[in-house]
Amino acid sequence: MLQLPPVQRADARFHQVEHDVLQTLKQRLEALETPGELAGPPENLHQLLDVSLEQSRDQAEDMLVRQLLAGLTADEVRILAALSDGSAFPMLALYSGGRFSRGQILFRHSNVGRAAGIQCTDMIGTYLQRLFSQGWVIATGFEEANRTDYELLEGDSGFRRAMSGLQTHWPKVKPHRETLRLGPMGQQMWALLSQPAEADLSGDEE
Amino acid sequence: MLQLPPVQRADARFHQVEHDVLQTLKQRLEALETPGELAGPPENLHQLLDVSLEQSRDQAEDMLVRQLLAGLTADEVRILAALSDGSAFPMLALYSGGRFSRGQILFRHSNVGRAAGIQCTDMIGTYLQRLFSQGWVIATGFEEANRTDYELLEGDSGFRRAMSGLQTHWPKVKPHRETLRLGPMGQQMWALLSQPAEADLSGDEE
Amino acid sequence: MLQLPPVQRADARFHQVEHDVLQTLKQRLEALETPGELAGPPENLHQLLDVSLEQSRDQAEDMLVRQLLAGLTADEVRILAALSDGSAFPMLALYSGGRFSRGQILFRHSNVGRAAGIQCTDMIGTYLQRLFSQGWVIATGFEEANRTDYELLEGDSGFRRAMSGLQTHWPKVKPHRETLRLGPMGQQMWALLSQPAEADLSGDEE
Repeated sequence: MLQLPPVQRADARFHQVEHDVLQTLKQRLEALETPGELAGPPENLHQLLDVSLEQSRDQAEDMLVRQLLAGLTADEVRILAALSDGSAFPMLALYSGGRFSRGQILFRHSNVGRAAGIQCTDMIGTYLQRLFSQGWVIATGFEEANRTDYELLEGDSGFRRAMSGLQTHWPKVKPHRETLRLGPMGQQMWALLSQPAEADLSGDEE
Repeated sequence: MLQLPPVQRADARFHQVEHDVLQTLKQRLEALETPGELAGPPENLHQLLDVSLEQSRDQAEDMLVRQLLAGLTADEVRILAALSDGSAFPMLALYSGGRFSRGQILFRHSNVGRAAGIQCTDMIGTYLQRLFSQGWVIATGFEEANRTDYELLEGDSGFRRAMSGLQTHWPKVKPHRETLRLGPMGQQMWALLSQPAEADLSGDEE
Repeated sequence: MLQLPPVQRADARFHQVEHDVLQTLKQRLEALETPGELAGPPENLHQLLDVSLEQSRDQAEDMLVRQLLAGLTADEVRILAALSDGSAFPMLALYSGGRFSRGQILFRHSNVGRAAGIQCTDMIGTYLQRLFSQGWVIATGFEEANRTDYELLEGDSGFRRAMSGLQTHWPKVKPHRETLRLGPMGQQMWALLSQPAEADLSGDEE
């Protein structure tokens, strides 16, 4: 390089800088990938199987924690926080079934969202669906003490709209009064998410 | 810096450029993280709880929208689009139960995929499972008008393969004829996803 | 630029380098976004609909594969691998229902995790919930040959803790002995994930 005339030398240096910067970025990104972990989402099954061979218990737990967190909105976390001390909330459920079999669940409604201070109170049906599907919450029976709450919930416009839409297909559909609470998996997952994070190992530059 | 001899000065400038570039990148990445939002996936529960304290209604809705979108493939979006005007499609369902109780759902099949023009028509069972699990769709009863469609669906090789595999465990398993449509949550989520996006606030450089 | 005095010219060059480096990064990021694919998570429904118009069968399959992989932890992949040859494992299930109707599923337990060598054996209930919800696995009936395994599983402390918690609400809750195996969707998804990856098209630099 020293043999080059000045301008070409400068050019070469500029390209060197450009190369170095990109190289540094590449190395920093690669440095994020340590054995038993993935820097980004897996691209194929092989990567996940490889990771599973090198993973420690903490790393396996961390992978689950990250996937659980990625599947929760901030509103949903508020709902879980409201349930996390064992609190229970009245819930309405609409089923496709009749007298002898409940059939499939079609819609749920609860005041847990308002109580928890969520932003999108009108999306409570979707939030509940997501939390049930992931196994966070369970439904227990009617609780007499909440009779007034059930009646108020039955009057909510979003719930009435969903129910009247469903009555086109199931004329006899009617709200079942249930109670929403954290299930055994929800308690365990919440404890897992709530445990103090390990010391931050992702060293800052310098 | 002006006191340095020319070569060292040049060197220093090159390092300065490199530093500046990385700094700029860092700032741009950090700029993405505004109160009530997360620039990347949450790393711990604390981050989500923090976000929930600062989140506006629009931000909460946006967080839900992004998670809903991340859980859909393009093929699934085509299916939802085909259902979004209230259209219904014949669906077959295989249950583990017998005469008095349907038991668990084991497999679903429908021609909605072909009608919607999806690419992976052979993955329709998986697509339906995902859409049901997320609460997008519901199953209503048999519709006489589609009798021919049901018969064609029962002859599809993927469906027959799944059914004969299941008959090893449940010899009496047989297709239930149902109708696939968007449920009340699906209608609400589709409306949420379809609403015009806000003006793009992520300013281009300069 | 040639008309500029030396210092300003140098300055201009430095800025040019900085600009070029960022430009290169930008282009590389954009290059990832090819028709029928998304470089990152979708920001709105429109993007997904656009993608669906340009997507080939391979691209649609790849989008599904990536979402399936993103929803699995390494421990869960080990469980699926253990089931992938058709192996079945004893499983306990707790239901809310009574004599005539099983009701909703509340908790599951199995020794498949230990057999597969997973790290977080205590999270098996959550892993099973996630795999059932995504349609990977199904539950078939009690198998006499595993009688001893069922008895051992019923004595596991995590399972007993979950059951006694649920007995507060359903005093008669008792373990149902079932068998865990890959379902027809699970077999299909596993085959999809296991197929040899295409040649790596993301060319390395130079």
